[in-house]
Amino acid sequence: MSVTAAKGFTAAGVIAGIKASGRPDLALVVNEGPDAHAAAVFTSNRFTAAPVQWSREVIADGRLAAVVLNSGGANACTGSAGLADAKQMAEWTAAEVGCDTTDVAVCSTGLIGVRLPMDAVLTGIELARQDLATTGGPSAAEAICTTDTVPKEAVHTSPEGWTIGGMAKGAGMLAPALATMLVVITTDAVVEPDALDAALRTATGFTFDRTDSDGCMSTNDTVIAMASGASGVTPDAAEFSEALTGVCADLARQLLADAEGSAHDIEVRVEGAATEADALAVARAIARSNLFKCAIFGNDPNWGRVLASAGTVPAEYDPEHVDVAFNGVRVFVDGQLGTDRSEVDLSGREVLVEVHLHAGDASAAIWTNDLTYDYVKENAEYSS
Amino acid sequence: MSVTAAKGFTAAGVIAGIKASGRPDLALVVNEGPDAHAAAVFTSNRFTAAPVQWSREVIADGRLAAVVLNSGGANACTGSAGLADAKQMAEWTAAEVGCDTTDVAVCSTGLIGVRLPMDAVLTGIELARQDLATTGGPSAAEAICTTDTVPKEAVHTSPEGWTIGGMAKGAGMLAPALATMLVVITTDAVVEPDALDAALRTATGFTFDRTDSDGCMSTNDTVIAMASGASGVTPDAAEFSEALTGVCADLARQLLADAEGSAHDIEVRVEGAATEADALAVARAIARSNLFKCAIFGNDPNWGRVLASAGTVPAEYDPEHVDVAFNGVRVFVDGQLGTDRSEVDLSGREVLVEVHLHAGDASAAIWTNDLTYDYVKENAEYSS
Repeated sequence: MSVTAAKGFTAAGVIAGIKASGRPDLALVVNEGPDAHAAAVFTSNRFTAAPVQWSREVIADGRLAAVVLNSGGANACTGSAGLADAKQMAEWTAAEVGCDTTDVAVCSTGLIGVRLPMDAVLTGIELARQDLATTGGPSAAEAICTTDTVPKEAVHTSPEGWTIGGMAKGAGMLAPALATMLVVITTDAVVEPDALDAALRTATGFTFDRTDSDGCMSTNDTVIAMASGASGVTPDAAEFSEALTGVCADLARQLLADAEGSAHDIEVRVEGAATEADALAVARAIARSNLFKCAIFGNDPNWGRVLASAGTVPAEYDPEHVDVAFNGVRVFVDGQLGTDRSEVDLSGREVLVEVHLHAGDASAAIWTNDLTYDYVKENAEYSS
Repeated sequence: MSVTAAKGFTAAGVIAGIKASGRPDLALVVNEGPDAHAAAVFTSNRFTAAPVQWSREVIADGRLAAVVLNSGGANACTGSAGLADAKQMAEWTAAEVGCDTTDVAVCSTGLIGVRLPMDAVLTGIELARQDLATTGGPSAAEAICTTDTVPKEAVHTSPEGWTIGGMAKGAGMLAPALATMLVVITTDAVVEPDALDAALRTATGFTFDRTDSDGCMSTNDTVIAMASGASGVTPDAAEFSEALTGVCADLARQLLADAEGSAHDIEVRVEGAATEADALAVARAIARSNLFKCAIFGNDPNWGRVLASAGTVPAEYDPEHVDVAFNGVRVFVDGQLGTDRSEVDLSGREVLVEVHLHAGDASAAIWTNDLTYDYVKENAEYSS
């Protein structure tokens, strides 16, 4: 049920005609209240798409009544005309929903540098308004897909009576400081905007920010959280934060599992680091090595490429005392050959690479994919 | 003639039996003097291969009489036993050539983590000693190849009577702060070690350090320059430095042109930057974007991916005033759509991507390749 799992939300996904394919391409998520609390995090890319510029402005007061999302066009690098289009989407949505224009966030995804067909967008907003329902989550999740092969949804229900639900899209440009994606999360918990913002930043920091499919950062990344307060329950802050992180982690895993052309989901876990920052830097370097990613595609537990990548990072560790394990098999131990690499089975989709630095107690993981023929095919033939 | 183009050098390349394929795999380059001046730069990877550790030590006094090189095994991540093997190679070479062990540099390339077959190495050194000749450059260049499809050689002859010649190998792990490779450069100019070192660092800084095929840094990168002084001519320092840079640039271009599976040679040139460091950072970010590299493979002048990559760099520029051109066609001008992308022809092997930041007068370029099916194939199926 994703974004309509929590009480106080309606949603819809419709065919607006933005995509040439005729597939669903416009979604609306509306917070019916009583609260209209919201928080959001956005791409740190400097070429921020027009909808990101708009949404960043309107979220500043911690209030949102609705989010309108479209696939089929990113409305990025479209100049002042594109920004006017984003604002127009908010105005039309506000008029349909009956709220202030500045309480509507806008998200777009698709090809960069192309203006949106605004006639189709208007039609879509009107259609979506008519379809708004407390069962509309799945159709909204479907309408934001681009090269995604499946919609991504996640729900957490607390025994105390509140719920968090979310939807995500993203299949390429999955990169750090927000994997490329649009995410909308809703909750009926009673949460003030500041607390929601803090919980959201914690959650994204531990999940989407550590998801790095191809090292490429999008211009449109947006994660929006809205709290309706409709459950009437004020959750424990730590419990809410943990649950929100769980929902984000669930969505992040779904994004990676559906990443363009990938054949393996890889967790690169660095342990024994002096600091968490060191662990992250080493894990990130490994996760971004094309040679390493090709080796995993070839089911090759190539610890040499793991070390060669780790060796580019100025973290605190002694290169002569490092361990590397693939799926639990320690092929390199304390700077020496360990168990023979033939013992490693990489034929499954899940791959765990563990690097122990023997420099402290900190650890961190980055989630990534392998580099495959299909990744090249999709990104050489599909313009985005 | 590569490394034997300059007077005072002999070389040989032989089949030692290190490679299972039975192809040439051991090379020797000997400086017959009168000078034995030398300089070298090495990988900055922290997992430095044993031969790099050895060579870094012996080059400290600015003297080399010979370099022994093998393909078929990188002798990297092989611990103290591997370091002993590298020293043994120097000892055997010194005994054959008749020089001090500490005047012999060692270079290895091939699979990481495997000990070298030292019997074969000894046989190779003996054979190479017998074959040493002033015409041996080409066979030496051939013997250091791994996945290279052609040997790489370059020569510069000065009208003043001195010559610089060089050979290089490298087809994968071509990355910054030394593209992955072994390079030996010889000159018969009279150049003191300090001057040679300075010229070499300048040359590599402008050439190999700006060559970034796949962002992966090797454990074995080595560039060695030796000066015999046999021409009797002391060149002008600036002229020598420029010539050495030219030879390195020539070799770097050959490395990229033969990079694993590549279909395009790409120059990413950033102009109008506030500083050269800014220009380099932006060019490097673009050159490392897999999405951008896939687009070039697909002959797609995807300026959106260029901007999305540039947007990750904290360089000084205004995202609303940036130009992007492909092969001279300005498809994005001052933050707006320019000439239609259909005007761009990317069907040739050479691609020039120009980004103008309008933030100053500095510029810099990074040379890279596209990301292709064959890159994935070679690196998924060939372990290195």
